[in-house]
Amino acid sequence: MNSKIRWGILGCGKIAHAFAFSLKNVPEAQLLGVASRTPGKARTFGEHFAVEYIYTTYEELVNNPKIDIIYIATTHNFHYKNILLCLQANKPVLCEKAFTLNAKQAVEVIEMAREKKIFLMEAMWMKFNPCIVKLREFLAEGIVGDIRLIKADFGEKFPRDLKDRLFNIHLGGGALLDLGIYAISFARMIYGHSPILYKSEAYIGETGVDEESAYFLEYENKKLAMLYSSSRIEMPNDATLFGTKGMIKLKDFFHPSKIEWKLNGKRKIKTIEVPYDLPGYQYEILEVHDCLTNGQIESKIMPWSESIENMKTMDTLRKQWGLKYPEEI
Amino acid sequence: MNSKIRWGILGCGKIAHAFAFSLKNVPEAQLLGVASRTPGKARTFGEHFAVEYIYTTYEELVNNPKIDIIYIATTHNFHYKNILLCLQANKPVLCEKAFTLNAKQAVEVIEMAREKKIFLMEAMWMKFNPCIVKLREFLAEGIVGDIRLIKADFGEKFPRDLKDRLFNIHLGGGALLDLGIYAISFARMIYGHSPILYKSEAYIGETGVDEESAYFLEYENKKLAMLYSSSRIEMPNDATLFGTKGMIKLKDFFHPSKIEWKLNGKRKIKTIEVPYDLPGYQYEILEVHDCLTNGQIESKIMPWSESIENMKTMDTLRKQWGLKYPEEI
Repeated sequence: MNSKIRWGILGCGKIAHAFAFSLKNVPEAQLLGVASRTPGKARTFGEHFAVEYIYTTYEELVNNPKIDIIYIATTHNFHYKNILLCLQANKPVLCEKAFTLNAKQAVEVIEMAREKKIFLMEAMWMKFNPCIVKLREFLAEGIVGDIRLIKADFGEKFPRDLKDRLFNIHLGGGALLDLGIYAISFARMIYGHSPILYKSEAYIGETGVDEESAYFLEYENKKLAMLYSSSRIEMPNDATLFGTKGMIKLKDFFHPSKIEWKLNGKRKIKTIEVPYDLPGYQYEILEVHDCLTNGQIESKIMPWSESIENMKTMDTLRKQWGLKYPEEI
Repeated sequence: MNSKIRWGILGCGKIAHAFAFSLKNVPEAQLLGVASRTPGKARTFGEHFAVEYIYTTYEELVNNPKIDIIYIATTHNFHYKNILLCLQANKPVLCEKAFTLNAKQAVEVIEMAREKKIFLMEAMWMKFNPCIVKLREFLAEGIVGDIRLIKADFGEKFPRDLKDRLFNIHLGGGALLDLGIYAISFARMIYGHSPILYKSEAYIGETGVDEESAYFLEYENKKLAMLYSSSRIEMPNDATLFGTKGMIKLKDFFHPSKIEWKLNGKRKIKTIEVPYDLPGYQYEILEVHDCLTNGQIESKIMPWSESIENMKTMDTLRKQWGLKYPEEI
């Protein structure tokens, strides 16, 4: 490994662009290779970011010995296969969320990473956002007491392009895997464990995927989370935490830059600004660098167990809705 | 009936004080009599408001021929009995919410009002709030399109006095009947009908009543309401309506004075202020006056069917929690 960590990007869609932009802003990172199977896409992307190795097959990318780690930015349905391809080539992996289509796939890829002792992490960038790091500190200090209820929603009104990955059941579509994953991961982060009871409703559109859903998760000691994800409705994307001593609010909870909190019986809303540099993926990149440098195969902040548990939560919800992906193993 | 409408107040608790204050501010209203069975309470109350007839039995109050209408402000467990007492004495009634303990009681008192042709209304003051009236106009104009989701919560951190009506199962205690009724009534007002599916969780405290609960109501066409009531947690008490074209927010949704709305894709939040005079019960008082003056026995804005349906909704939720009041018939 030379002084820079050399990245390869597998899949050249929108999120890959944002990630590549973040890579450019991490001095220790170098974007060395890209691959896309869509004709012309890797070239356009690669030239835009002045990438040395531009491939039209994933195999070439993962077998380039100069590349230290692969960032997988394909649609959800491909994650499982893409992770296996990387691990089989002994390449460390940062894989976009949702990590896989289901928990079974997650367990399988994690088992391979464990056996082969190769770094693997779900790209849950939210957990590395500086404001979220500050939130965890605040909660550990009991700033608003014991959290009893979390409300969070993530809704965007997407153009109704039914072939788009968001609506396409063959591409792991649906608002849950794309947006809901943040709310689920957020609630898990706060309560420290998985839900024990699930109640939910979903609006399944004409393509067979969830376009709107509300889920109501119960945790130990009757702690609750009321979460919502939608690809049909624009929502404020806030999270509110209700504690025994007060409440906390985060705007754009999956990439916040401000924490507002209010103690019970007080009128004053306290605020702390924790700004971050856009687009915001650099913090997870730094975590990956730390792990690779220290020889860790698993992140302590986004451990494997969380990826598996979050997938299990989504499996349970989809089961309640009768939503099964054709690509599920 | 003389030029003023002469009111009697049955029960002299906190809400009765606020209501009496509102009566004083309605020129056409006169507070003529009060009754409380608690020694000394009617006298203190009556002297404070310079009331002519002060009674220590409800029977005396309802049988005073000079009184045109009775406002019932006792604890929920007594409403059924108190309404029957008034109707049997041929007195019109405005009864505090929750209307009764359950739908069966509501049906029974309404049947008597219908048979005897006597005015009866649940004191759901929220529906007469000028800002709520404006909201109904806005929704009829489709200001944010078709409403798909309503979120509302009503939580206050009450002192843990376990003998207080809020925690006392014998007084119809619990956050649902006291606070949740607003959220349920609000959602019903927006969607125009009762929920068709109920999912809920409650925290039942040591006195056997719900101290915290979340309910997830589904309406026709998969429209949803995510509602919460708590006597343990202070909440912002907002309602947010998510429509196909945008969202609407009301602070203190059960007595708002401002409507904020935002159209999808726009950054600008539009606002209209619709202030009201405190404490705010005068608008339901004016509705009662209108009905009495016009010989209506039922309000068109808060009809009997709504009181029954709201009680049915709460019956269903309590059944899910195994919460039954000893006083239920």
